Amino acid sequence: MTHVALFGAGRIGRIHAANLCSLPGLRLTHVCDPIAEQAAALAQLTGAAASTPEAALADPAVQAVVIASPTSTHYELIERSAAAGKHIFCEKPVDLSAERARECAARVRAAGVACMIGFQRRFDPTFEQAVAELRRGEIGEPEMLIVTSRDPAAPPAEYIRHSGGIFRDMLIHDFDVFRWVLCADGDEAQWISAAGSVLTDPAIAELGDADSTAVTIRTRKGRLCQINTSRRAAYGYDQRFEILGSRGMLQCGNETRTRVVRWGADGVRSDNPEAFFLQRYAAAYRAEISHFFACLQSGARPGTTVEDGVQAQLLADAAAASWASGAPVTL
Amino acid sequence: MTHVALFGAGRIGRIHAANLCSLPGLRLTHVCDPIAEQAAALAQLTGAAASTPEAALADPAVQAVVIASPTSTHYELIERSAAAGKHIFCEKPVDLSAERARECAARVRAAGVACMIGFQRRFDPTFEQAVAELRRGEIGEPEMLIVTSRDPAAPPAEYIRHSGGIFRDMLIHDFDVFRWVLCADGDEAQWISAAGSVLTDPAIAELGDADSTAVTIRTRKGRLCQINTSRRAAYGYDQRFEILGSRGMLQCGNETRTRVVRWGADGVRSDNPEAFFLQRYAAAYRAEISHFFACLQSGARPGTTVEDGVQAQLLADAAAASWASGAPVTL
Amino acid sequence: MTHVALFGAGRIGRIHAANLCSLPGLRLTHVCDPIAEQAAALAQLTGAAASTPEAALADPAVQAVVIASPTSTHYELIERSAAAGKHIFCEKPVDLSAERARECAARVRAAGVACMIGFQRRFDPTFEQAVAELRRGEIGEPEMLIVTSRDPAAPPAEYIRHSGGIFRDMLIHDFDVFRWVLCADGDEAQWISAAGSVLTDPAIAELGDADSTAVTIRTRKGRLCQINTSRRAAYGYDQRFEILGSRGMLQCGNETRTRVVRWGADGVRSDNPEAFFLQRYAAAYRAEISHFFACLQSGARPGTTVEDGVQAQLLADAAAASWASGAPVTL
Amino acid sequence: MTHVALFGAGRIGRIHAANLCSLPGLRLTHVCDPIAEQAAALAQLTGAAASTPEAALADPAVQAVVIASPTSTHYELIERSAAAGKHIFCEKPVDLSAERARECAARVRAAGVACMIGFQRRFDPTFEQAVAELRRGEIGEPEMLIVTSRDPAAPPAEYIRHSGGIFRDMLIHDFDVFRWVLCADGDEAQWISAAGSVLTDPAIAELGDADSTAVTIRTRKGRLCQINTSRRAAYGYDQRFEILGSRGMLQCGNETRTRVVRWGADGVRSDNPEAFFLQRYAAAYRAEISHFFACLQSGARPGTTVEDGVQAQLLADAAAASWASGAPVTL
Repeated sequence: MTHVALFGAGRIGRIHAANLCSLPGLRLTHVCDPIAEQAAALAQLTGAAASTPEAALADPAVQAVVIASPTSTHYELIERSAAAGKHIFCEKPVDLSAERARECAARVRAAGVACMIGFQRRFDPTFEQAVAELRRGEIGEPEMLIVTSRDPAAPPAEYIRHSGGIFRDMLIHDFDVFRWVLCADGDEAQWISAAGSVLTDPAIAELGDADSTAVTIRTRKGRLCQINTSRRAAYGYDQRFEILGSRGMLQCGNETRTRVVRWGADGVRSDNPEAFFLQRYAAAYRAEISHFFACLQSGARPGTTVEDGVQAQLLADAAAASWASGAPVTL
Repeated sequence: MTHVALFGAGRIGRIHAANLCSLPGLRLTHVCDPIAEQAAALAQLTGAAASTPEAALADPAVQAVVIASPTSTHYELIERSAAAGKHIFCEKPVDLSAERARECAARVRAAGVACMIGFQRRFDPTFEQAVAELRRGEIGEPEMLIVTSRDPAAPPAEYIRHSGGIFRDMLIHDFDVFRWVLCADGDEAQWISAAGSVLTDPAIAELGDADSTAVTIRTRKGRLCQINTSRRAAYGYDQRFEILGSRGMLQCGNETRTRVVRWGADGVRSDNPEAFFLQRYAAAYRAEISHFFACLQSGARPGTTVEDGVQAQLLADAAAASWASGAPVTL
Repeated sequence: MTHVALFGAGRIGRIHAANLCSLPGLRLTHVCDPIAEQAAALAQLTGAAASTPEAALADPAVQAVVIASPTSTHYELIERSAAAGKHIFCEKPVDLSAERARECAARVRAAGVACMIGFQRRFDPTFEQAVAELRRGEIGEPEMLIVTSRDPAAPPAEYIRHSGGIFRDMLIHDFDVFRWVLCADGDEAQWISAAGSVLTDPAIAELGDADSTAVTIRTRKGRLCQINTSRRAAYGYDQRFEILGSRGMLQCGNETRTRVVRWGADGVRSDNPEAFFLQRYAAAYRAEISHFFACLQSGARPGTTVEDGVQAQLLADAAAASWASGAPVTL
Repeated sequence: MTHVALFGAGRIGRIHAANLCSLPGLRLTHVCDPIAEQAAALAQLTGAAASTPEAALADPAVQAVVIASPTSTHYELIERSAAAGKHIFCEKPVDLSAERARECAARVRAAGVACMIGFQRRFDPTFEQAVAELRRGEIGEPEMLIVTSRDPAAPPAEYIRHSGGIFRDMLIHDFDVFRWVLCADGDEAQWISAAGSVLTDPAIAELGDADSTAVTIRTRKGRLCQINTSRRAAYGYDQRFEILGSRGMLQCGNETRTRVVRWGADGVRSDNPEAFFLQRYAAAYRAEISHFFACLQSGARPGTTVEDGVQAQLLADAAAASWASGAPVTL
C-alpha cells in the first residue's frame, strides 16, 4: 500500500484526492492545507488525516506527495519533498520564474526522485489518441500544429494579478502541447512571435496583461505552430488542436456531455463543449495520477517531468517577451 | 452503511460490484456464485465475503441484493429476496415467461420491497438527456420513434439456444425504450407487427430464431415506432434512436471513445461506436446502481420497476408471436 | 439538335424547362399548358412556342416529350406520345391505377420508344454515390434498408383529396428507392406491412388518408426494409436512408445550403436540411434530364423505366391495402 | 443584351465563359487568347468570335470585359479597357507590384468605370452566410479570425517561379478574407508577422519561396487574425475559417461532393473536401460574375473593387517582407 500526502485541498486538490481514493494499492494519509477547515473536510471525506507538510514529509511511510497548492508554494514544496526523498506529482507550473524552475529541476535530479508535472492535456483520451497515431506515422511527418485554447470566461482581475500573465498562466499548457506534438524527435522551438490584445475586460489591460493572444512558433526543422487563445468563449471551454502532416491531418475536437442532436426550425443543434477544465479533463486527471503511480511501481519515467515544466516556462517567458517588445524572440 | 449482497460474479456481476464499491455509504458484503473460484476472486477484489444466497438473505444486515445471475435464476431469486424483505436490483429480464414475471411482480408488491429492473438504457446520459428534453416539450408532442439497435456480432449458437429468442433477449431493451419514450403519458402499444430474417448465421435459423428484425408498433394515440435490429454490425455496437415530434426531432447518436478526426486521401474518418454494451453503457451502469440506492435512501420509487419488466416482456412475446404467424398482434 | 416538347408549365415544368435549356444539343420548341398565360410566359422565357399536345405530337421535328402535367393526364399523354413515336420523360407516377400503368407500359413497349419515369432520387449525388458503393461491394451484401422521408409541412386538404393517398403520392418514391437499393440482383418484395396515423391535421383523416406511416417490407431473400414518413417535419425536408450490409453501413445524410456552424451559448448549430424537394433535388432534376437525353443519343436504356413506375405503384397499392386491412400483404 | 469580351481562354477563362453563357441578358461576343486554337475552341463552344483585345476594345457594342489572362497582362489590360470605357472584371491579382496596382486603381477611378477583382471567396455560399451572420451581430463583436488555406499539392516549380511567391500568389485570397471579415467597420491591419518554411519540395526553397506559412495580423482595434497555409494537404483542398466573437463563434467547414457516411471496421468515413478550387468555388464563380453584371445594371458598386486588390497586395508585400526579415512589419 503506497502512502500519499496531498498538499492543497482546494478545487484541484479535491479532484486529485478523489482520484487517489479510487486507485487500488494507494492510501491517502495526509491532507495539508493552511485553511484548516478545508483540510479537515477533505481528510474526513477521504479517510486521511488533516496534517501539515512538516508532518507529512517526516512520515517515513509516505512515499509520494501530490502538490495542488497555489503556484507560489510549488517551488518550496518540491524542494522540500525532494530533500525528504518523496516522489512528487506537482500541478503546473513549477514556478513563475524559469530560473527557479530550473533550480527545482536540479534539486529533483540530485535527489533522484520522480517528479511529474500535471500537464493533463497529455492524458486526455482524444489528444493522446491523436498523438499516438501521429507517432505511428499515420499522417507522415508533422508539419503544422494549430492549437485553439479558449476559456469560457475571464477570471477575476485579482486572480490575473497573481497569475504570471496569460502566457505563463494559460498558454503554458499550449506550449507543452507544442513540445509534446512537434518536438518528440528532438526538434525544438527556434523562433517565437506573440501578439496580444485586451478584448474582454479593460481591467486586464490595467494589469498589463492580455486576454487574447496569437502566437507563432517555428522549429529548427521548419515546422510551424500557431496558437490562438482567448479568456472568453461564450459557447464553453474550447480545446482543440490539429496536426497537418505530409500525408494527412489529425484533428482533435471538443468533448460534449451527450450526443443528442436537436433538429428544430432554427437549425440542427448539438451540445456545447464541456463547461470548463474540471469537466473536460476529468478523464485526463484520473489518467495522469494513475500513470504517475504506475510509473513509481514499474520504475518507468513519468510521461511529463519537471524538465518539461522548465521548457514550457521558457517558451512562456519568450512569448511574453515577444509580446512586450512587439518583435519575435529567437531561442 | 447499507450492506448489499451480489448474486452472480460473471461479466455483468463484476461491473455492478465495481460500481457498488465506488458508491459512498454502501458496503458489498456477500458475493454469491455457484462457480466458487469466481465468487472468491470477486469477493477478494471487493473486500466482500464469498457467500451463498441462503446466507446472504438470512443476514439481517443485508438490506438490498443485486441479481446478476443467469436469467433462469431471476424468478426464484427475486421471490426469495422479496420474501426475505430485501430490496432488489435485478438484471433484465425478470423471466422469459411473462406469466412468471407477473407472479414475481405480485410477490414484490406483496412484500413491499423496491424492485428495480436493469434497463440501463434509461440511464445513458445521451438517451436520458433526449427524453428530458422531450418531456420539457422541446419538440412538442412525440409522434414517431425510430430505434436502431445492432450488436457487433452474433453470440454463439449455444447462447442463443437459451436466450428466449431475439425478441426476448435483445429487443426487450428496445421495447422498454419504446415504453419510456412514447408511453409516459399513459399511451400504450395497441398494434405490433414484426418481421425477421436470418442473414448472419444459418445456425440461428436451425434454432428457430432470427438475427435481423424489423418491428412496428402503433399506440392507442396513433404514435408510430419502428425498431430495427441486427445481431451483426461490422462497425461496432450501434445504439441510436430518434424521436420525431410535432415541433422538431431529437436524435441520439453513438458514443465514441475519442473525438479524433483523421483527414486522409481516403476520406475523413472518426471513431467507430464503442465496441459493445459494457463500454457503451459504462456510465449508465454506474448511474442506474447509484439511482437505485439513492431511491432506497430517499424512499423514492426507482425509475424502472418490475412492472416495466413485465410490460417489456409482453411486447417481446407479442412481437415473437407476430413474427411466428406473419400477422400483426393487437394488444 | 434534338427538338423537345414540354407538357405542363407549372412548378416542376419550369424546373425541367430550365434544365432543358442548359443542355447543349437540345431545343425546347413546344410548351403546352391548358393555362394559356402560363404556357406563354414559359415559352417566352425559353424561346419556345406556346403550343398544344396535338401540334407538338404532330411536329415531325419533335423527338421527345417531357410530361410535367397533373397526374391524371399522364396516362393519356404517354399513350398518345408513344403512338406518335416520341420518346417520353414523364414525372411520377405513371397513373394512380396500377392497372392503367401496366397498360401504358405495354403501349410503350409496343411503340418501341424510350419512356423514363422521373424518380429523381436515383440521380441525387449522395444517394447515387451510396448505391454505387453498395454495388461495388464496399459493405458486402445488403441486409437492411432504413428510409426516412418527411415533408416539411402537409399540403392543403384539396391536394390530398386528389393525390391517391400518402402511399401512392409520397411513398412511391420510397418504394422506388427500396427497389433500387435492395432489388438490383433480382430480389423482390415478398411481404409488406403498413401502419399509418393522422397526427398533423384532422382534415386528412376525414379524407381517409394518413399523414404518418411506418412500412416494413421483407424480400424473398429475407432482406428487411423499414420506411418511415411524415407529412410534417418542423425542421425541413428530411430525406435520408441507410443501408446495413454484411460488412458495414452506408448512410445518406441531408443536404444543407451551407457548412456554417454556429457556436453559441445555446449549443452548436448547423444548417437545417434544404426546405423542400425543389431545392434538395435540384441537382437530381438536372442529372435525370441530362441522363435521359444522353440515353436517347447513345441508345442506352434509361436508368428508370415505365416498368419501374408500375412496380412502385404495385408496392404503393399493397401498402395502402395493408394499412386499410391492418394485415400484411403477401406479394 | 450586354456584350462582353473575354481575355484569356485557359482554365479559369473557360469557367467564366460558361457562367457568362448561362446568365440571361448577356452575350459573350469576343474571346481573345494569344493561343489561337484555344481562343477558337472556346469561341465555337460559346457562339462568340475569336478576337483580339484591340478588336474587342474597339467594338462599341462591348460594354464589359472579363480578364482571365496571365497575371503579367492584367495591368495593361485593365488600363486599356478603362481607357476604352469598358467595365472590368479582372481575376486577382491586379499586379504583382502594389505600385502598379495602385496606378491601375487611379486609372480606373479616372475613367469612371467599374472594376471588380475576382476574390471569389467572398461569394462562396458558406463564407458569405457566415459573414452575413457576423454583420447581423449574431456573435457580437469579432475578435479573432483563424484562416486555414491549404492546396492539395504544390504546383510545378516553373509556376512558382513566376507566381510572385506564396504570399502574393496564394495568401492574397486570405488577406482579402481578413479585410472582408475584420475590417468592414473601418478597422485595419496595423502589425503583421509572417513565418514560412519549405516542407514539401526543396525546389521551392531554391526559388526563394516558402510552401508553408503562418501569418499573424493585429488590427488597430486589437483584433487578431491567424492564417495558416500549405501548398500540400494530402486530403484535398482545405478552405476553412472561423470567427470568434464576443458572444459566440462562426465556423466555415469544407464543402464535400456528397453526404454519404461509411461505417466500417476502420471507422466512420465521410467525403474528402472538394479536390481543388474549380470544384470548391464553382458556385462562387457563378455568383461573382452574376453579381458583377447585376451591379452594372443597377449601378451599384461591386462587392470587391480594384482598391481591395491593392490593399490585399499591400498585405502580401508586408507579409513577404516580414518573412524575409524575420521581423514583424508595422503598417
